[in-house]
Amino acid sequence: MPDPELVEVFRGPRVESRHAGALAVADADGGLVLALGDVERPVFPRSAVKVIQALPLIESGAADRYGLTEAELALACASHSGEPAHAEAAASMLRKAGLDRDALECGVHWPSNAEASRALARSGAEATALHNNCSGKHSGFLCSACARGEAVAGYVLPEHPVQRAVKAAMDEVTGFTAREEDRGTDGCSIPTYAVPLRALALGFARVGTGRGQGPVRAAAFQRLRAAVAANPFMVAGTGRSDTVLMTALGPRAFTKVGAEGVFCASLPELGLGIAIKCDDGAGRAAEVVMASLLLRLLPLSDAERAAVEPLARPVLRNWRGIEVGGLRPTEALRH
Amino acid sequence: MPDPELVEVFRGPRVESRHAGALAVADADGGLVLALGDVERPVFPRSAVKVIQALPLIESGAADRYGLTEAELALACASHSGEPAHAEAAASMLRKAGLDRDALECGVHWPSNAEASRALARSGAEATALHNNCSGKHSGFLCSACARGEAVAGYVLPEHPVQRAVKAAMDEVTGFTAREEDRGTDGCSIPTYAVPLRALALGFARVGTGRGQGPVRAAAFQRLRAAVAANPFMVAGTGRSDTVLMTALGPRAFTKVGAEGVFCASLPELGLGIAIKCDDGAGRAAEVVMASLLLRLLPLSDAERAAVEPLARPVLRNWRGIEVGGLRPTEALRH
Repeated sequence: MPDPELVEVFRGPRVESRHAGALAVADADGGLVLALGDVERPVFPRSAVKVIQALPLIESGAADRYGLTEAELALACASHSGEPAHAEAAASMLRKAGLDRDALECGVHWPSNAEASRALARSGAEATALHNNCSGKHSGFLCSACARGEAVAGYVLPEHPVQRAVKAAMDEVTGFTAREEDRGTDGCSIPTYAVPLRALALGFARVGTGRGQGPVRAAAFQRLRAAVAANPFMVAGTGRSDTVLMTALGPRAFTKVGAEGVFCASLPELGLGIAIKCDDGAGRAAEVVMASLLLRLLPLSDAERAAVEPLARPVLRNWRGIEVGGLRPTEALRH
Repeated sequence: MPDPELVEVFRGPRVESRHAGALAVADADGGLVLALGDVERPVFPRSAVKVIQALPLIESGAADRYGLTEAELALACASHSGEPAHAEAAASMLRKAGLDRDALECGVHWPSNAEASRALARSGAEATALHNNCSGKHSGFLCSACARGEAVAGYVLPEHPVQRAVKAAMDEVTGFTAREEDRGTDGCSIPTYAVPLRALALGFARVGTGRGQGPVRAAAFQRLRAAVAANPFMVAGTGRSDTVLMTALGPRAFTKVGAEGVFCASLPELGLGIAIKCDDGAGRAAEVVMASLLLRLLPLSDAERAAVEPLARPVLRNWRGIEVGGLRPTEALRH
């Protein structure tokens, strides 16, 4: 059975495009509170699980040893826009471990924030690996490797101890042992292992509660969530959905986008985790699904609601600022 | 019945995302040679029909009166990347009609070509309406309005004579009278009317053959297609699919992307027109569908095939240039 349509894109009087997908909302014991579409099919979680991939940075003692700030810990969980504060924080993390940007194996791209990209060009500079949206996560990997005395070169490879530790953490937190034959390579060159949405939702319930993961890991999750809640700009950037949502909701929601239409979240006060995958990989649709679920699940103040609602029903404006259409959740998502 | 999946995105060993859609291939009498999915549902053709929207520019006599070059006529059919040659050609068209960029009502955006955008920033300049991907089409509208002595201001409005002429041309060429209640506003502020894929495919068969449209219109289509075939860079830009395809195929194929996963083409030697809509609006999938159809329908030389095949099975590389996956047509599209 195909996944249901979750989001419609309309223009004037007509639906122009449609996005199907699946989602799971689970508690920290694995109970499914809500499921739409196929939540058993493994999907690559991509960057949505960076907060779990950051566990070795805390659990190795590297974060304490190098005195990483909360902003730097937030950057370790980030897919950032390459704005100056992001690149500077990544450089600072590397410096603390005695490294520089040459150690990064994530590759180089220009800032995804268009204004930051143009400003960089205007300044006469070139993009570096610090501007790569994953530079914070990679700086965290490098801090972890340095603290444990592991080789720095090749830290992105599946067999490197850092990536083995990341996979072990993912398996433990999601309760799903990802198969080696379900391994892909992510945009930043690290392995990504396919995991069912049901297991991802359970994992994010545990990110929010620490339940069943022992006190050390529970404290690590608490520390990472607090770091991001205090620095929502560092986890994404200007105008980005994670930054907008967590600026409004603070510690009430931890949200994280991933490439190809993945979006995960923890709602600590409800003990719930959310995992979304849009089948066509559309981030615009995943954002509508996430915002719709937050509106449905969390009791919100007027101010919180006013911040989240525009993401659930974003307006499309053309190049002259004229409203020409929008996105909206379908019936399947509203019920 | 939902539209079939036409394109898969895979990463390593797994399919990561899927794109459904519909397509029609028709002859100039409206006979359907091939149809997948719902080809009767009206869809907004967006920028895919710029070659038809350029008819008033020719038929009003404006192109001759102002001595527009072939490169400028190609730009009138373009969704260009805002590279210097594009912006300069739009400025030249306006100058010939006694206007400048202030007359453009398409809105301002930075060049969609990232390197062109950074180069513009580096030069200390700002984006103007000339960099809008539709500036050539709009300059053509303005030339047409000037040649006919019509008001310049408001030329984007549905009731302006230019847009009435564009709608009349669309209705005649597609054989489908678009309904006023199916009108949306395009990204560049002009009206876009929903048309079934079946009618769009017929329309593009006529773009390639002129059949049933009279000798004047047949000559206008011939002139526009020749202009684009001689200037494939002007209709899109560096690395863009229309430019790549028409650089390889010359006058053998006229292709044109539209926003939200629309892609249309004429194959003059076969007398066929193609119209594609990816349901989720994904341009990356529409490109795979178009390239797959060109490979299937046109007898190609080795050199032509070598240029088209990479678009039918594009490789996905990550930021370090490592091959991590790709896109490919599904069984439904291959049969």
